[in-house]
Amino acid sequence: MKFFQELLRLEQKRRGFHIITGRIEACLPQILEIKVGMLQVFIQHTSASLCINENADPTVRQDFEMFFNKTVKENDPDYKHDYEGPDDMPAHLKSALLGSSVTIPVRNGKLTLGTWQGIYLCEHRDFGGNRNLVVTAWGVGF
Amino acid sequence: MKFFQELLRLEQKRRGFHIITGRIEACLPQILEIKVGMLQVFIQHTSASLCINENADPTVRQDFEMFFNKTVKENDPDYKHDYEGPDDMPAHLKSALLGSSVTIPVRNGKLTLGTWQGIYLCEHRDFGGNRNLVVTAWGVGF
Amino acid sequence: MKFFQELLRLEQKRRGFHIITGRIEACLPQILEIKVGMLQVFIQHTSASLCINENADPTVRQDFEMFFNKTVKENDPDYKHDYEGPDDMPAHLKSALLGSSVTIPVRNGKLTLGTWQGIYLCEHRDFGGNRNLVVTAWGVGF
Repeated sequence: MKFFQELLRLEQKRRGFHIITGRIEACLPQILEIKVGMLQVFIQHTSASLCINENADPTVRQDFEMFFNKTVKENDPDYKHDYEGPDDMPAHLKSALLGSSVTIPVRNGKLTLGTWQGIYLCEHRDFGGNRNLVVTAWGVGF
Repeated sequence: MKFFQELLRLEQKRRGFHIITGRIEACLPQILEIKVGMLQVFIQHTSASLCINENADPTVRQDFEMFFNKTVKENDPDYKHDYEGPDDMPAHLKSALLGSSVTIPVRNGKLTLGTWQGIYLCEHRDFGGNRNLVVTAWGVGF
Repeated sequence: MKFFQELLRLEQKRRGFHIITGRIEACLPQILEIKVGMLQVFIQHTSASLCINENADPTVRQDFEMFFNKTVKENDPDYKHDYEGPDDMPAHLKSALLGSSVTIPVRNGKLTLGTWQGIYLCEHRDFGGNRNLVVTAWGVGF
């Protein structure tokens, strides 16, 4: 039984949805040693999130940003928590809707993502700063 | 330590929410060999998703379809990604809101689902085709 | 390889969002024995859910309750499933949006939650009763 875990610091990204599949794979090359297993990516923040979605057409990520801005409004007068600015509380809510982690099976040394699947870092703040991830893989070796 | 993994191809289902708990259990009968462990179901697509919800009254699944259609509108003129039809971009968004996987503890050879919990396959496309899942279980044997 | 699992019964809480990080840690003190691993919390219900979000300012949790009530309306005449009252179907939908589990890496005997992250029990019913959780941790010991 193998267990690997790395901390990954991502430099600040602009608000929006970003594909980070390559960064995750590069961070934990020991995935290659796992015949059958799992990989989890966890984000240590409450105003950015992770999800899996389309990895090809960049307009999908633009439509994600548009949809989540429309659905989780800024400047709702009913917000009580607003002292970090209009993007503060919406970022917490978007993060909860999308989730703090993704977990993907590993098979024969590779993530079993479908053809069109990529891992998204979802940055919900205007200036979110660096983002810290914990990448963990476990499973049976060859 | 045991690790089991199977690929499961589900035939095309109509758009909507479908209970697949029995299909998952049948796909990995080795769950019976696990005393304490976990099971994960992962969907290799970005326009269908998985979640856990009520397994009894079929009107719950109808209300899910109604709610998600109302919340994630088709034909929003702000969508840029629309070349696969009006159900294309909404399917990606619904999939991200609900998620690509469910993970359930295993105890004494059985999923520890609550009395009213079932696993839903959430088909967000009108004609989504077959859907491929990866079912993985791991844990300590008896 | 270590595997620990406990059932945790939480007494009825009022509708809203509640931090339960301390309860989870207290329920499974064996986390201390894990050098590199994972912890999962699973809720065995379909009208309450789990997520990770801000652990400091209580107004964040009040804004969560406000936002989810506004986004998943009660008394929508399109609901078919309503025989347990106006909070019934909205509770199922909120539960699916937020999810039935959270999974957090463990490192050096501790959850790797970020500074501002806490585990939320999200109670979506007015009178939800006790809530049963399954808490599982696995990994490599020291």
